[in-house]
Amino acid sequence: MAQKPTPYWDYIRVDALLSLQAGISAEAELTNDEVMFIVVHQIDELWFKLILREMVAVRTLFARAPVPEQALASAVRGIRRMETILHQLAAHFALMETMTTRDYLAFRDKLTGASGFQSAQMREIEIVMGLPELERVPLGHEGSYLTALKEHDGTESPALKRVRARLADRPTLRGAVLEWVHRTPIQGSTPAEPGDAAKVRAFAEAYLATHRAAVERGLEAASAQSLTKADTKRLEERAAHEIASARAYLLGEDEPEEVCARASRIRCALVFIESYRELPLLAWPREVIDGLTSFEQAFVIFRQRHARMVERMIGRRTGTGGSAGVDYLDTTALRYRVFRELWAVRTILVRAEDLPPLENPELYGFAGGS
Amino acid sequence: MAQKPTPYWDYIRVDALLSLQAGISAEAELTNDEVMFIVVHQIDELWFKLILREMVAVRTLFARAPVPEQALASAVRGIRRMETILHQLAAHFALMETMTTRDYLAFRDKLTGASGFQSAQMREIEIVMGLPELERVPLGHEGSYLTALKEHDGTESPALKRVRARLADRPTLRGAVLEWVHRTPIQGSTPAEPGDAAKVRAFAEAYLATHRAAVERGLEAASAQSLTKADTKRLEERAAHEIASARAYLLGEDEPEEVCARASRIRCALVFIESYRELPLLAWPREVIDGLTSFEQAFVIFRQRHARMVERMIGRRTGTGGSAGVDYLDTTALRYRVFRELWAVRTILVRAEDLPPLENPELYGFAGGS
Amino acid sequence: MAQKPTPYWDYIRVDALLSLQAGISAEAELTNDEVMFIVVHQIDELWFKLILREMVAVRTLFARAPVPEQALASAVRGIRRMETILHQLAAHFALMETMTTRDYLAFRDKLTGASGFQSAQMREIEIVMGLPELERVPLGHEGSYLTALKEHDGTESPALKRVRARLADRPTLRGAVLEWVHRTPIQGSTPAEPGDAAKVRAFAEAYLATHRAAVERGLEAASAQSLTKADTKRLEERAAHEIASARAYLLGEDEPEEVCARASRIRCALVFIESYRELPLLAWPREVIDGLTSFEQAFVIFRQRHARMVERMIGRRTGTGGSAGVDYLDTTALRYRVFRELWAVRTILVRAEDLPPLENPELYGFAGGS
Amino acid sequence: MAQKPTPYWDYIRVDALLSLQAGISAEAELTNDEVMFIVVHQIDELWFKLILREMVAVRTLFARAPVPEQALASAVRGIRRMETILHQLAAHFALMETMTTRDYLAFRDKLTGASGFQSAQMREIEIVMGLPELERVPLGHEGSYLTALKEHDGTESPALKRVRARLADRPTLRGAVLEWVHRTPIQGSTPAEPGDAAKVRAFAEAYLATHRAAVERGLEAASAQSLTKADTKRLEERAAHEIASARAYLLGEDEPEEVCARASRIRCALVFIESYRELPLLAWPREVIDGLTSFEQAFVIFRQRHARMVERMIGRRTGTGGSAGVDYLDTTALRYRVFRELWAVRTILVRAEDLPPLENPELYGFAGGS
Repeated sequence: MAQKPTPYWDYIRVDALLSLQAGISAEAELTNDEVMFIVVHQIDELWFKLILREMVAVRTLFARAPVPEQALASAVRGIRRMETILHQLAAHFALMETMTTRDYLAFRDKLTGASGFQSAQMREIEIVMGLPELERVPLGHEGSYLTALKEHDGTESPALKRVRARLADRPTLRGAVLEWVHRTPIQGSTPAEPGDAAKVRAFAEAYLATHRAAVERGLEAASAQSLTKADTKRLEERAAHEIASARAYLLGEDEPEEVCARASRIRCALVFIESYRELPLLAWPREVIDGLTSFEQAFVIFRQRHARMVERMIGRRTGTGGSAGVDYLDTTALRYRVFRELWAVRTILVRAEDLPPLENPELYGFAGGS
Repeated sequence: MAQKPTPYWDYIRVDALLSLQAGISAEAELTNDEVMFIVVHQIDELWFKLILREMVAVRTLFARAPVPEQALASAVRGIRRMETILHQLAAHFALMETMTTRDYLAFRDKLTGASGFQSAQMREIEIVMGLPELERVPLGHEGSYLTALKEHDGTESPALKRVRARLADRPTLRGAVLEWVHRTPIQGSTPAEPGDAAKVRAFAEAYLATHRAAVERGLEAASAQSLTKADTKRLEERAAHEIASARAYLLGEDEPEEVCARASRIRCALVFIESYRELPLLAWPREVIDGLTSFEQAFVIFRQRHARMVERMIGRRTGTGGSAGVDYLDTTALRYRVFRELWAVRTILVRAEDLPPLENPELYGFAGGS
Repeated sequence: MAQKPTPYWDYIRVDALLSLQAGISAEAELTNDEVMFIVVHQIDELWFKLILREMVAVRTLFARAPVPEQALASAVRGIRRMETILHQLAAHFALMETMTTRDYLAFRDKLTGASGFQSAQMREIEIVMGLPELERVPLGHEGSYLTALKEHDGTESPALKRVRARLADRPTLRGAVLEWVHRTPIQGSTPAEPGDAAKVRAFAEAYLATHRAAVERGLEAASAQSLTKADTKRLEERAAHEIASARAYLLGEDEPEEVCARASRIRCALVFIESYRELPLLAWPREVIDGLTSFEQAFVIFRQRHARMVERMIGRRTGTGGSAGVDYLDTTALRYRVFRELWAVRTILVRAEDLPPLENPELYGFAGGS
Repeated sequence: MAQKPTPYWDYIRVDALLSLQAGISAEAELTNDEVMFIVVHQIDELWFKLILREMVAVRTLFARAPVPEQALASAVRGIRRMETILHQLAAHFALMETMTTRDYLAFRDKLTGASGFQSAQMREIEIVMGLPELERVPLGHEGSYLTALKEHDGTESPALKRVRARLADRPTLRGAVLEWVHRTPIQGSTPAEPGDAAKVRAFAEAYLATHRAAVERGLEAASAQSLTKADTKRLEERAAHEIASARAYLLGEDEPEEVCARASRIRCALVFIESYRELPLLAWPREVIDGLTSFEQAFVIFRQRHARMVERMIGRRTGTGGSAGVDYLDTTALRYRVFRELWAVRTILVRAEDLPPLENPELYGFAGGS
């Protein structure tokens, strides 16, 4: 052990770290409120960094073909860690709320040029995750979110550089995961095998038939209750709509023709995994799907909690950076969904006893045991 | 001590309690998932009961005139307790999410006639709190939420009776609190004193002037950044709108003429309390306002978390009871606000150094010390 | 659908449930504090009920030989659910703490005969889990905890009946899980195979050698720092002790001779699972082990949080039921460990690069992939 | 607004911040686990910084005599903020636990010279708070905790300098608060008034009489239950001990003679505040006391949670830095109490209806109302 021992303060870089809370003045001039405000944002950035590292690692694992089974365990752990961090992030808002509006306003003028929207890492997370650029909610002024990342003299900031580099770094987590989901054996058939399309279509039809029966059973039961005619009619229309939507969705009919079959296979695979989730071979896919669902849910919860904190701190006024403030945050919380397929299939799942019979069970490891 | 000692199981009624989880069958036939589903709802009802008891007690305290100062401490404690319970309630959703969609569907058919909308206590809480009946979001079928509380043969259920009794029990918490806020001394003047209206108006004008200056200062700073003309124009319009809205709001111009002065005084009082919050005499009012704000925020967070859980469990399908499901929950979360004034004034607060000078400080206890 | 629709209030049994909060008086006479006290205990009992149901189900799964692989997924889900419930339970203490000592004392005299120690379900959980009767910390009076479950006239209470029934219901969760762990293939060898004992011993020796090296490496590094001779000596003694303890532990030398080999195999299996945790065949064992560790950790956290709440509410006075109060709770928190092996092996784990080479990797599924 | 707008990344110092996670190598060489380990410690240090700033501010407020009433509101807010931060800190352990023991060991050797015990800020918090140096639990090697803060070549580190400066910065929070508590009017009498000692003694005697009656009432009730003679005797002894301890404590008999009267007055003041907590004049003292109790409770919870995390990560092995590991943490959690008086008085509180009658109520503001 020639290595010289490193004390805690060198390993953690405590002194450098604790010298960064001065904002744009000398720290001694700041109120406790402002130092807290800076610290909470720094902690957010540190958490973001961890999320990014994990997300890139998980993405890279899924980008391999085939994905080695041991890697899946590691991927699931990474996804769970990202979720845990989001819970921490959401919890921090409670601390911000120990500051009053009036006391926040005391230093808010300094922040005219600064805004949470300028957090490059938050944008990077959305990009790596796979948020389509076209679905972004405008910030409330012209120019994309990339404009907000320029220096005030219009030059490229380090923040903008980082974001641009991420935009060029492909595939996204969403892309890589869906590619992997696409290869899932459905009723024992894989994409590479001849006749796969027909088998997948047969599964889809069998599944849609049972889904239709479930919706009709629900309608019948609801109609048995004392409803007005208008209510009954509304329920019937809604049931018809649910049946038609499920069909369109599972067959990928809402997608352009060239990707329709691929979209359909991915969605069928997700329904298949959710439906036969106890099969040994589906254990890891199920964990991945559950993990990503939890993660995206935690993201929505984080965004909504963020909106609640901002509303509490400054009400409905215009945000620093000129954004629409609370409304922008509530809108993005409900609109930004990356793993849309994971959420959509939940709408059309059916109970276990109604599922089409499993074909080729031996491929999914029924034989085993321990 | 003639009293016979009571063992824990009699005091807590453990055996009676543990016999209530059979749903509509024998408990032995139920899956763990269904028993959990029932238990979580029962726990929700128990928490609701505590919230209701506290809320009625707090309401009754504020309905007294004057409210004794010791009662305020107790009211604040009750409000904080209600908030703490809401955090517990929001945390329970994580448990529900340990159940998969497919496994929930296994027993969902039983619940055709049952729906969380039929929780009488949830409706009672909204009523006592003071949610206006006209602002309720329709459930998705004809007939009000009261219809959903009838027995299936159309007769009055115990749930409906309880809700009707609450509707008749006045004032609401909101009504009682605003009445008390209305009596707040503003710049040393109380409603009973001659000249109060003029003094309140003078405070409002002074306050609006400083608010206007703050908005204009913000606009100037934002404009100094490299923005397009269109952006600058948009910011100018928004600033003008903020100034005009603040004026209309603080003077109560959005209210019918006969209540306009009262509304204005209440809003000025809230601005006054938030602005001079360190004054000893305003200590309890501030705690009450902060407590109610936290409580309503926790309520919104609870509703949004509820929406997330439902979306995760069943996606976007029609809810049991025929409601619109997740959308209904997200809509009510954002739309239902009882203490609207508490949220609105946050939008127009200004920093301490810009506040109009305090008049009659001696009335607010500056003399004291300990 | 001949079935009559069931409204929410019948399914959840709302009215019966809400009639159980009167304690030993009429509910109208109770303070909000006492109703809260009763409700929180009732909620605790409801959570306990869910834990018990899950724990019995998990125990029953592990009592099968072999345990079907699909059952493991379900077992892990049950274990995670139990952990989630414990987090909820720990969170409730915050609510209890909204009550002051003085206000709790107002009704504490009523509870002379009642004590949380009389919660039959808490005892049942400990029993099913596998807490040895001999390790129980005495309550502070003569007679076992079973005595505390008698009616005051000495007859058998329903609580006592339930606890006695659990004591007769075998195996415990601990027993069943360890039996299953015992069958884990170690370096490819299973207990039924000839030569298993020798192979396990060889693994143990190889592992102990690498453990020894790790301890010595740590000692060398620590000694390189500027320590006094006395400190160096103390570290050397501690290192020697760690090496000897690891050996005694892994070879089961602390156990009676007749169970020594079985204990050693179980401990080696746990070390093996933790060490080669990415192997596909060990995926579920690892999840089970991690889940049980998290669960027991959550249990300790719950107990310590309980102690903190009681200390805050009543300080260090004698508990109702005559127990030693806070000290009893803190002692049980640290002393009650059921899955001792899971905790003990953590002490002797080594880093991946130092592990003995894996033998017979093909048995653990290295070949696969997806 | 001549001021140049500052973008988010300059205000938060994002780039400098994100360059500090390399430990003692290049960051690219680190595993995600090690980066997470570093980040979590950095976040801890940032929270510690906020706690320290608040604690010093609160201390400084209480060091004034008299403490202005408006300052109390601010002090309470600071105390609550410190508590909220501790909850955040305790929550972070869940993230650390996403790392396995084996994977932590992969980089643990690097940390031979580093240890959490070397966190200067943690020591500073204990010092400002008022932990007596004599009560510190030894780290497991010779030399005080200050030795652990030296550089490895024995020179003074920046960490040691900071800690030494804190040791010289007096009074502690404990000292300042108790000085303020000491001035509390008891039955209307303040220390400066003639006859104060007699009045305080009279209050103490009246209070002890009612405490004695309460203990005897409890004993009688407990004895009425079917206990063995030995149990009854044990309860009698314990009751006698409780009565005697309460007396010794409230009269300060456990303290050296020269501070005995002062200690007694402080303890009587705390009992007085807790007992007549609704009195308007005692509103802020009560909030301060409640806040400090919550804060210290949160500190104990944080320490115990820390012990649980360490036990989970590395079991019972020797800690980095050569400490006794988990046992050290559990011991400090239970032994380190700074506001001992706040905890001790909870043991001797009585219910409201038994309290001695309040004298000079007009001094406590009964006349008021709003």
